[in-house]
Amino acid sequence: MRNERNHDELRPVEIVPHVNKHAEGSILISIGDTKVICTATVEERVPNFLRGKKQGWINAEYAMLPRATGNRTVRESVRGKQSGRTMEIQRLISRSLRSVVDLERLGERTIWIDCDVIQADGGTRTASITGGFCALVLAVDALIRQGKLDDTPIKEGVAAISVGRTDELLLDLNYEEDAAAEVDMNVVMTASGRFVEVQGTGEEATFTLLEMNEMLHMAQSGIETLFKAAEDALGASWWYVGEQLEETT
Amino acid sequence: MRNERNHDELRPVEIVPHVNKHAEGSILISIGDTKVICTATVEERVPNFLRGKKQGWINAEYAMLPRATGNRTVRESVRGKQSGRTMEIQRLISRSLRSVVDLERLGERTIWIDCDVIQADGGTRTASITGGFCALVLAVDALIRQGKLDDTPIKEGVAAISVGRTDELLLDLNYEEDAAAEVDMNVVMTASGRFVEVQGTGEEATFTLLEMNEMLHMAQSGIETLFKAAEDALGASWWYVGEQLEETT
Amino acid sequence: MRNERNHDELRPVEIVPHVNKHAEGSILISIGDTKVICTATVEERVPNFLRGKKQGWINAEYAMLPRATGNRTVRESVRGKQSGRTMEIQRLISRSLRSVVDLERLGERTIWIDCDVIQADGGTRTASITGGFCALVLAVDALIRQGKLDDTPIKEGVAAISVGRTDELLLDLNYEEDAAAEVDMNVVMTASGRFVEVQGTGEEATFTLLEMNEMLHMAQSGIETLFKAAEDALGASWWYVGEQLEETT
Amino acid sequence: MRNERNHDELRPVEIVPHVNKHAEGSILISIGDTKVICTATVEERVPNFLRGKKQGWINAEYAMLPRATGNRTVRESVRGKQSGRTMEIQRLISRSLRSVVDLERLGERTIWIDCDVIQADGGTRTASITGGFCALVLAVDALIRQGKLDDTPIKEGVAAISVGRTDELLLDLNYEEDAAAEVDMNVVMTASGRFVEVQGTGEEATFTLLEMNEMLHMAQSGIETLFKAAEDALGASWWYVGEQLEETT
Amino acid sequence: MRNERNHDELRPVEIVPHVNKHAEGSILISIGDTKVICTATVEERVPNFLRGKKQGWINAEYAMLPRATGNRTVRESVRGKQSGRTMEIQRLISRSLRSVVDLERLGERTIWIDCDVIQADGGTRTASITGGFCALVLAVDALIRQGKLDDTPIKEGVAAISVGRTDELLLDLNYEEDAAAEVDMNVVMTASGRFVEVQGTGEEATFTLLEMNEMLHMAQSGIETLFKAAEDALGASWWYVGEQLEETT
Amino acid sequence: MRNERNHDELRPVEIVPHVNKHAEGSILISIGDTKVICTATVEERVPNFLRGKKQGWINAEYAMLPRATGNRTVRESVRGKQSGRTMEIQRLISRSLRSVVDLERLGERTIWIDCDVIQADGGTRTASITGGFCALVLAVDALIRQGKLDDTPIKEGVAAISVGRTDELLLDLNYEEDAAAEVDMNVVMTASGRFVEVQGTGEEATFTLLEMNEMLHMAQSGIETLFKAAEDALGASWWYVGEQLEETT
Repeated sequence: MRNERNHDELRPVEIVPHVNKHAEGSILISIGDTKVICTATVEERVPNFLRGKKQGWINAEYAMLPRATGNRTVRESVRGKQSGRTMEIQRLISRSLRSVVDLERLGERTIWIDCDVIQADGGTRTASITGGFCALVLAVDALIRQGKLDDTPIKEGVAAISVGRTDELLLDLNYEEDAAAEVDMNVVMTASGRFVEVQGTGEEATFTLLEMNEMLHMAQSGIETLFKAAEDALGASWWYVGEQLEETT
Repeated sequence: MRNERNHDELRPVEIVPHVNKHAEGSILISIGDTKVICTATVEERVPNFLRGKKQGWINAEYAMLPRATGNRTVRESVRGKQSGRTMEIQRLISRSLRSVVDLERLGERTIWIDCDVIQADGGTRTASITGGFCALVLAVDALIRQGKLDDTPIKEGVAAISVGRTDELLLDLNYEEDAAAEVDMNVVMTASGRFVEVQGTGEEATFTLLEMNEMLHMAQSGIETLFKAAEDALGASWWYVGEQLEETT
Repeated sequence: MRNERNHDELRPVEIVPHVNKHAEGSILISIGDTKVICTATVEERVPNFLRGKKQGWINAEYAMLPRATGNRTVRESVRGKQSGRTMEIQRLISRSLRSVVDLERLGERTIWIDCDVIQADGGTRTASITGGFCALVLAVDALIRQGKLDDTPIKEGVAAISVGRTDELLLDLNYEEDAAAEVDMNVVMTASGRFVEVQGTGEEATFTLLEMNEMLHMAQSGIETLFKAAEDALGASWWYVGEQLEETT
Repeated sequence: MRNERNHDELRPVEIVPHVNKHAEGSILISIGDTKVICTATVEERVPNFLRGKKQGWINAEYAMLPRATGNRTVRESVRGKQSGRTMEIQRLISRSLRSVVDLERLGERTIWIDCDVIQADGGTRTASITGGFCALVLAVDALIRQGKLDDTPIKEGVAAISVGRTDELLLDLNYEEDAAAEVDMNVVMTASGRFVEVQGTGEEATFTLLEMNEMLHMAQSGIETLFKAAEDALGASWWYVGEQLEETT
Repeated sequence: MRNERNHDELRPVEIVPHVNKHAEGSILISIGDTKVICTATVEERVPNFLRGKKQGWINAEYAMLPRATGNRTVRESVRGKQSGRTMEIQRLISRSLRSVVDLERLGERTIWIDCDVIQADGGTRTASITGGFCALVLAVDALIRQGKLDDTPIKEGVAAISVGRTDELLLDLNYEEDAAAEVDMNVVMTASGRFVEVQGTGEEATFTLLEMNEMLHMAQSGIETLFKAAEDALGASWWYVGEQLEETT
Repeated sequence: MRNERNHDELRPVEIVPHVNKHAEGSILISIGDTKVICTATVEERVPNFLRGKKQGWINAEYAMLPRATGNRTVRESVRGKQSGRTMEIQRLISRSLRSVVDLERLGERTIWIDCDVIQADGGTRTASITGGFCALVLAVDALIRQGKLDDTPIKEGVAAISVGRTDELLLDLNYEEDAAAEVDMNVVMTASGRFVEVQGTGEEATFTLLEMNEMLHMAQSGIETLFKAAEDALGASWWYVGEQLEETT
């Protein structure tokens, strides 16, 4: 047991919607001491490579405040470029959110998801996916209320969590646990229990098929908890998440 | 009267200390709908140009989350450099804070003040100075508790506010008022009522000496209100703001 | 008395027009040992953000030759970016010149003001404003001669000077005096005696309202001397500075 | 069957060692029409963050010639930075190679693995891992011959392959197949059959646990074929791959 | 005699066409141990400055793989910009190729010549010109076969070689000889024996008119050998090199 | 005859020393309407690659003011990098000056030569070499006067001029002539009549050996005129140029 939690238990999750008065959708997600502000911005145009293709796009960006971390990190704007880590995370969040959206039904518009880590304690990329999805739901909600969309283009929910191996398998690693882990796995899953992304990494170590399957099960149970938290937080807006919606109609 | 306020009245001010578990000092300052997270980081070394000069340094950085603003702003890390506006603001915050600190008594260390605007509605640079000063007080408090400093190097309090001229003179302009103003003035003042910075700008307009003096009086009264809010929020830590303050209380 | 001057006296001023055969307007301004080449370039288009708005724009750039200074400065093209100081100065010059021009009467064109410091000895930003204004007058003169403008869009003259506080208040600080000054103020004023910009800075020091007003008076008297020098140098072209001037002569 | 291959069959593999006269280790790996030059460079120092930690480091870089691809790609040196994709791939190759090396036994030196794609037809990142490992073996061989290492720090072999899902599951996707695939998985495995990295991605699609396990089995069989090709190509040098290999002799 | 060669003899030359399945034209040129992959890419548009001018353009880029050299060179994409040396070489290759092409007959298209040095041992810029020209011939061949051009726009052949002075005058310097040379000359010549570029450089040394003329004669003889090698390698495609050649056969 | 000059005649040359109060050496060179400020800065250290090698270094930088040219050029500091043309010119000036200096006798110091083109009308790079050499002579003069050098490390004078071919061969091309020229040659020569650099370029044209030799003779005569102008301008300082000095002693 770590910090009074079981090895397969999530840290406390809190999702607060509408934290920004400007953004079409916004939430503050806290998982343990990791806190991320996620905003969704609707832009009524698509990137050049999609012009005239009658579909929309979703693009995520990720950053950390300099003192989100134990030691102050130099700003990427000062260093003049985004790090490889930042770009890798942005690509992961973007792909994950696009996997559950029908981009044609979204129409020729881009939704920008900005994930800014206010305080970091492990699992910032997975919290960004879960929180980014919630902000996306709120932005779609707004588009529907404004009459710009008739129906939701979101096919189903998506959320993410990390699992790792130290002495034992652990769910939802905090910073300290993550630093100690030999194997680290990020799992992105839909509400219907299908995988969107599985990224398992042996940090100067290796892992077996058996371990991998155990970790995936542990992740699935954690992700189900995240979906409950999201549903509670978003309330009526949650209805704009496709599958659930269809069931009830 | 604008939004139920008199033309010489501040918007509601809120200062919440200790919002970040990593930073030596941290606060969230809200002035109206402008919200800035200010953290103070102590680094036990000085920039190269001060090596061996037996004094410390204070350096501020400023940024806005992409969706702090009504339209989404492209990240400076994506554009590959900080804008002229950002650099100008950082230099202003840095100079303002250094003006009230005895850098020799601070010792050979740097205090980094990070001002990250979570939501913008006018006056972000002045809120960053006021909030940055509060974070600095908390970091000095921490240094004294840790025995790294015997006494505070802070000579007195510093805070800042904007004033402008539209049809009439206005204190503490929000975004809409600022956009409409022909003249815009940022005033940085100490607790003893002396100026640290006065930056008056005619935006394609001009102003007279009389107007200038009226605006400075209005600013002074707003800054006094800010000092009261800071004192309430910081409580005991406020005592680490040097002698001038103690004498006047 | 410093270098045979009174504390409220300008250094020798020299303004030489037509120093560049390519530019629409050009002058070399010398104030003491500070020498700046200012050119004005007319470009028959406006920045993107002004397209279709039926108005013009004025944009200034500022740079120093590497050996303009006592120690050689690394070129900004080698460092790969302009410094915060450069951008702050460029913004100040641009705003100052725009404040005295009727941008609608200028028509849909941009006037670029390039201020290149050939030799620096304090006051390079204020010399750039005064010199940049003279180059602007010559470029407007050229536009009128070419029949591209019927009438001048310049509303009145603008010029700038620095004032500071060392042991006493000083007008027009050279490099050495500026380095010693605790308070430094740059004042931009129109020919009719109204302020465009007032930037007062306590360098790790503070100043009172009384001192501020004294410095502003001193600045006003220096700026009047600059206008005389500009008038002498530009001769007939000076008439293209709008109505206010004509009325007063 | 695609291009005369079964869906679980690798494209033709060719590994040519010693293609560069300067590098400590070098090979040209061809998998189908994908061709990558991999060189290993020994540098007798470690990155700053490892100074004095009595261990070595392995760092990979990856790039494509502009016309490696069907359409010409702009050089990253011209764009002024490496893309997110490039950085993500470099991080993957680096981690994969480090996972099979005992960095303490490598000693305080860095081995740079450069993977330059001469011609691309899918699977360039996995070919880079397999080829990069071969170049690493040759560089370690050279270090042992030079007496700089007594024994190999390589713990076992590592190689990588891609698997995907179009209508059916496919091993070793070429460019056309990869573009058509809904699910794409890169698998990095050791000679003893343990995973180093598993990166499964639904490209606007999802996948089940069952599919994932099938793809992993298919990958394992492909990787075994790659190890045979590497063994044939490297001949005696292969002996410098640690214990597993020794056991089988 | 150096490495069994006379001082006026070329190193072994090999030109292998069609080394890249994507490019419109491609060759691998080896001169001694210097190996360069040259590809020609046809792009059906011209740079902005040529829009509507009814002519084409030829633009070359040059790079070295990190381990092309004896010590590993940091990638220009990592350093964030191309070096002065790279840009100077690119400009030389581009000018040399444009000098033998009738850009109006090429039509409104750009041919990109990419010269990537796989292994370097002196003379990489001259090998790039010779090899780049061969790739250009193949691309023109492809354009004619595709019916996009009726006739070749190539006026005559172009090739290049280096000459230098150590103790004696030497043709085609390898890296070691080049490092020792006091005078270094790169000569670009047409098949009809006219100069396109002559770049003679005293490296902290000087040279006389007599030496210069001797070096130019030596270069001419080497370039004739290169044309024979190109003719053998390109076979039928060589016919697309314009009239002079046809006349002589 | 062009502008009242013969085809083998220089434009008017003027060399004004001591134009900058800060630099160790400075001159303003005018050749026709081309005007370049050249300063020489002595730095008492050498670049890293020369540390401990008991020799000095000479490094030149070159830039143009934005309105030196007929159309305004965007600043390289704004574009974020120096162009290929700038870097090529800087390398040429640096090599030319180093060729006539005994770097060991210079001692462990760097002399920076900054060539800033105030107004351009052709031949800016050759004017920079001639002017840069004069600034170097003055800086060496200063070092000798200060007792930091006993004797001059300058072996002999160096100067440069351009020649070109339009309808006829022309010496010292102005901008208009240069734009019309098919062949352009820059020649750098010593006072003793030996070549340092010869860069002949056919701009989409070619030239013969005979033409080349004619152009070199024309250049030599122009360079002799430049040496006379330099000698007149520098007066006593000219004695610090080696060969001449030896002759007179």
